[in-house]
Amino acid sequence: IILLISLAFSMNAQHPVLILNKESVPELRRAMNEYPMWNDMVSQVQQQADEAILEAFDVPVPVDPAGGYTHGKHKQNGKLLKRLGAIYQTTADDKYARYAKNIFMAYAQMYPSLGAHPVKASYAPGRLFWQQLNDAVWLVDAIQGYDCIYEYLQPDERKTIEEKLLRPYADFLSIESKFVFNRIHNHGVWAVAAVGMTGIVLDDDELVCRSLYGIKENNKPNKTKIDANFKKQFEAGFLTQTASLFSPDGYYTEGPYYQRYAMTPFLLFAQSLDNNIPSLKIMEFEDGIFYKAIETLIQLTDANGGFFSINDNLKGMSLNAPEMVWAVDMLYAKTKNPELLDIALTNPTRHINSAGLEVIKGLSDGLAKPISKKSITISDGTNGDAGGIAILRDDENSVCAVLKGASQGLVHGHFDRLNLMFFHEENEVLSDYGAARFVNVKAKEGGRYLPENETFGKQTIAHNTVVINEQSQFDGKFKVANEHHADILFSDYSNPEIRIACAIDSTAYEGKVLTRVSAVFASSHFNNPVLIDLFKVDADIKSGSYDLPFHFLGQILDVGFEYSANSTAQVPLGTENGYQHIWKQATGTSEDACTGITWMYNRRVYSITTSTDKNTELIIGESGANDPAFNLRHEPVFIVRQKGARSHTFASIIESHGTQNPNTESVHGQEKEIKNIELLKDEEAYTALKFESIKGTSFTLLVYTGKRDESKNHTLELEGKTYNWSGAYKLIEN
Amino acid sequence: IILLISLAFSMNAQHPVLILNKESVPELRRAMNEYPMWNDMVSQVQQQADEAILEAFDVPVPVDPAGGYTHGKHKQNGKLLKRLGAIYQTTADDKYARYAKNIFMAYAQMYPSLGAHPVKASYAPGRLFWQQLNDAVWLVDAIQGYDCIYEYLQPDERKTIEEKLLRPYADFLSIESKFVFNRIHNHGVWAVAAVGMTGIVLDDDELVCRSLYGIKENNKPNKTKIDANFKKQFEAGFLTQTASLFSPDGYYTEGPYYQRYAMTPFLLFAQSLDNNIPSLKIMEFEDGIFYKAIETLIQLTDANGGFFSINDNLKGMSLNAPEMVWAVDMLYAKTKNPELLDIALTNPTRHINSAGLEVIKGLSDGLAKPISKKSITISDGTNGDAGGIAILRDDENSVCAVLKGASQGLVHGHFDRLNLMFFHEENEVLSDYGAARFVNVKAKEGGRYLPENETFGKQTIAHNTVVINEQSQFDGKFKVANEHHADILFSDYSNPEIRIACAIDSTAYEGKVLTRVSAVFASSHFNNPVLIDLFKVDADIKSGSYDLPFHFLGQILDVGFEYSANSTAQVPLGTENGYQHIWKQATGTSEDACTGITWMYNRRVYSITTSTDKNTELIIGESGANDPAFNLRHEPVFIVRQKGARSHTFASIIESHGTQNPNTESVHGQEKEIKNIELLKDEEAYTALKFESIKGTSFTLLVYTGKRDESKNHTLELEGKTYNWSGAYKLIEN
Repeated sequence: IILLISLAFSMNAQHPVLILNKESVPELRRAMNEYPMWNDMVSQVQQQADEAILEAFDVPVPVDPAGGYTHGKHKQNGKLLKRLGAIYQTTADDKYARYAKNIFMAYAQMYPSLGAHPVKASYAPGRLFWQQLNDAVWLVDAIQGYDCIYEYLQPDERKTIEEKLLRPYADFLSIESKFVFNRIHNHGVWAVAAVGMTGIVLDDDELVCRSLYGIKENNKPNKTKIDANFKKQFEAGFLTQTASLFSPDGYYTEGPYYQRYAMTPFLLFAQSLDNNIPSLKIMEFEDGIFYKAIETLIQLTDANGGFFSINDNLKGMSLNAPEMVWAVDMLYAKTKNPELLDIALTNPTRHINSAGLEVIKGLSDGLAKPISKKSITISDGTNGDAGGIAILRDDENSVCAVLKGASQGLVHGHFDRLNLMFFHEENEVLSDYGAARFVNVKAKEGGRYLPENETFGKQTIAHNTVVINEQSQFDGKFKVANEHHADILFSDYSNPEIRIACAIDSTAYEGKVLTRVSAVFASSHFNNPVLIDLFKVDADIKSGSYDLPFHFLGQILDVGFEYSANSTAQVPLGTENGYQHIWKQATGTSEDACTGITWMYNRRVYSITTSTDKNTELIIGESGANDPAFNLRHEPVFIVRQKGARSHTFASIIESHGTQNPNTESVHGQEKEIKNIELLKDEEAYTALKFESIKGTSFTLLVYTGKRDESKNHTLELEGKTYNWSGAYKLIEN
Repeated sequence: IILLISLAFSMNAQHPVLILNKESVPELRRAMNEYPMWNDMVSQVQQQADEAILEAFDVPVPVDPAGGYTHGKHKQNGKLLKRLGAIYQTTADDKYARYAKNIFMAYAQMYPSLGAHPVKASYAPGRLFWQQLNDAVWLVDAIQGYDCIYEYLQPDERKTIEEKLLRPYADFLSIESKFVFNRIHNHGVWAVAAVGMTGIVLDDDELVCRSLYGIKENNKPNKTKIDANFKKQFEAGFLTQTASLFSPDGYYTEGPYYQRYAMTPFLLFAQSLDNNIPSLKIMEFEDGIFYKAIETLIQLTDANGGFFSINDNLKGMSLNAPEMVWAVDMLYAKTKNPELLDIALTNPTRHINSAGLEVIKGLSDGLAKPISKKSITISDGTNGDAGGIAILRDDENSVCAVLKGASQGLVHGHFDRLNLMFFHEENEVLSDYGAARFVNVKAKEGGRYLPENETFGKQTIAHNTVVINEQSQFDGKFKVANEHHADILFSDYSNPEIRIACAIDSTAYEGKVLTRVSAVFASSHFNNPVLIDLFKVDADIKSGSYDLPFHFLGQILDVGFEYSANSTAQVPLGTENGYQHIWKQATGTSEDACTGITWMYNRRVYSITTSTDKNTELIIGESGANDPAFNLRHEPVFIVRQKGARSHTFASIIESHGTQNPNTESVHGQEKEIKNIELLKDEEAYTALKFESIKGTSFTLLVYTGKRDESKNHTLELEGKTYNWSGAYKLIEN
């Protein structure tokens, strides 16, 4: 205790030190006169602060789960403390600091009396909140507020707040919760950032070392010297979390929804370290991984800025999330890339710090440029060797396909190796259900993940990838799945006409190799770029049934095959592995070499054309069965079922060919543009797909999916002609 | 023939004469320099014309149904002729007139050889199109084009076009199709306008008289003198159509979707008459009904400008429809009401004529004001005595309730007396399915009404109104239904806190009187105005089951009662009257005096609370059963079923209490604000509803639904207190 107090007194008056730091304050104040946009924004935050301080604050004894009053109030208080601090710094008006002080004192008074939160629903209950994660988030906010009012406080006030609240709080999050703190998981990152930032503000190297290097059984940090020697890493702590959770490409293995969430503590703590311990050279860690992670996260979005539904993802979460503000500001401050301002435009409230001001300056000077996203393969895995995500876009960014050939994504992962999503402009064409959860909705199990997330959301049939024998990948076993990953066998984005990638997996189903080739083909022969999809199942064991689902949204306009509809009674498609959640609406067969469906969604007309034979069964279903609590959305699915096959290749083309206008009632391009598709060759390593447009043009795509050897020459005889090529593929206009 | 030719030659050079008329041309040209917005708009139309004339035109032999090539091409040609004419007048560049002439000549060459259209799917096949309606629309467009290039044409060219195309075309639409031409129906109006406008351009009084007064069996007009004596009306013709199809309040009995469609011929022909035969004083006809009809149509929209789903309505049709351009321009030219410019802003392309220019001037001068819609009761019926539509809005226009107490709406009517719709901001809260149809979608029966429109869309259970003994109103018999109407018993919009209306019907179910009281209650005790709904069934015959469905959209968050879900097998709710199209998902009962459900839709949280007793069954269902062609949308419904009742009152309150933000994941106001509702009094003429908010405030609404007598004093004893009032209702804060 004596040591800690002396530290607090010995500090020079240098606060704030974290993100909003003393050096930037004069400019932040000056900009109020120079940039009306900045002035407006700060004034808005100030107005919120003014409104808050008119009322008595409340620091209630914690009782409620997420969605309840005390949960919401503490969350608000955390944000308010941060806001009051920032406004105190910008206005130098003591009233904000005084109000923040009073809140801190109330917390300091209550905190020592708190035990574990009464809602016992988390593996790691917090003090203020039902789960400790929220406590960590609270401290990340609150410590920024404390940092800002530090100079305003009297020494005895600091002593009270630090001794009764901040240090015990940091100890609770670290040494008393080692199992969370040392975890390689976003919960661990939040705890580490909260404790580390507190350590910086309190000038307490021990807290910083705990955060950087993790804690030993004896509560000591794994390392006590802070330096830029990154070579030796420990099993826990911020550096290890950063190195482990991000791939070298900056992909966070839990997926973009959680990456967005986890970015905040990563970035805030990293920036705090960089501002205060420059010798650590944290921004150079892992080749500048923090910046790279932001860039990658931006690429992992559709045209609405919505994150791709990879693993547990809540639909609607996007680049407009509050967590993205700091990420975009920080990257812009570093790169001055005007496309980042385009994102800032749709989410205009910045944080009050120098990076936020840089963005406002850029916006004020009209520098924003429309964002243009890339075709890119993003590696997964600590060392970038656990597969990845291939994102295929045409040059105009009108369509986007996402092929998943990554690892499981830890506990938030879905059993969806080789899943495929497809977007056209603002619409999902091939959709992914995402997670079954209503965050913060009390009526939906307090906002937690719903049982249907396990029984449907995570199951393979809920995704656009092959299910063998109606069993999910890895038999739905997380432990096994988590030990393996798929791979991106190749990707080639060099040709603007065709962007192509291939993912492969040999572990999801024992003895079976799944290979998927996806290509975005942007040709003047079609209204919009089409998605070519080849899904190969190579099996060395006895035959089974292979289901390839295509999940979509909207209304079926046309069914290309004879079918029998279950119009007067509906039963689920199966009894387990997610099949129990799909109503079986219709089944059919096709006498043609290919068939498909056409549907309308959000004023667009789409079609799938898929190859069929006498062993193909075609199923139309809808999610929502076995859902007594109405937890699931009801969304249609078209399943191509291949029966009694040993090895089989599904060949499909998905198009966005039409538009509808409800005001003029005109429907343009309602006929699909693919007339015919045919597999001319279907061998283990070679596939040749011929497809013909209704205008009569025909194309052949030759693909080699065997062992990679870019110099190898390939030869195929097709329809009496000989084709030679090297590399992964060749596209021929016949 | 000789007479007709001489008429054509004898005309003075005074064209164009219709809407874009010779007098306005100099100003339309001058404005190109004065109003950049006008210049841009005309230039855009000119660019479309320029693009068109670069290519060879096509006047194909008609073969296709709606959605097909020849259908679309002729439709385009009609619009193009109009556009070419307008651009010829604005630019005086002969090339546009020449191109239009060539198209007319091609039609003149083909037309005489055409018989009935080969697609035999309409009760009235056309020549160019599968249904004659489209032929009439074509002529309304084309005659405007012809009018504009009239002066450019040589006499022999006029002769060819008029003799081979326009006159035979007008004869086909009138004397050869009397059953359509003389019809009191939008098809009849289009035919009449086409023929009448052609008569004006060709200076042919006989054509004009046919249109104004209808045709006799001997092909002669019912009257041959054009004058402002409106007293004597005939069974057919424009005046009778106008007087019959619009109520004195300007409501078109088929509903707003068709009103929007029919307005164009009404307004274009009326304006053409006014410009050319001022002695007719057509704009004064029926107290200025043409202007009134536009005003009424604007009121019949939700916050998105979407038309209320009254009768056959296609969702998405709105004030942005092209038909509304001329309507809004014409009304603005007359009234200069700046709120009309607000509508024009969302649909900025005007027509090229003086009214369109007026709107552009208003927009250019920044005169637009946000539109504020009213609470209003709109009468139905030729004489305004066939019931009506009550529209209840709070002063901020944040919510809107629509109570239907009107007539059947001719063949486009639904069996939905006392239907109730409710909107909050941009969302439907209580929704109405509308019509089952995909206009212009070939795959959906060529774009025609689907069988499910009869079997579901029109049936009572598809609407938010009571179904007795699972049978639709009037037993689903159109003829009987068409002879009767409901009534608006009273409405009172004088109190900003509560807007209230009552509809009554005694014919839909023999021996039963249905009375519905709807009130929008805007109180500071609730986040948003709530909808109070009392539905009384008074029966003088033996008991039955009463179903009150509430159709909504989105995802159920919470069910307030015990229920059993049909999770593993689903069957339809019934076998006929629309019930066969609803999957029965769950049924339950309530032990409380009231219960309900909470749901989320488009980032909002809604609840219904409804009174229950031991004879109440609660059903949750979804549309989509017995729909083998996938023609129906799948939308949820909550049905309150009262069993074994003689007389019964359903009391319900619908609220919009919460909001959800997918980016912050915050959910505000997720708990409903109505804690309790209770019927303190439930007699034939008196109803007293007490409702309590979760904050503890309670209110009592007293309603008198007996014989109207505003001076009568009412007395009710409730909970030991005596209440006195006169008039329809009294609201008490307890």
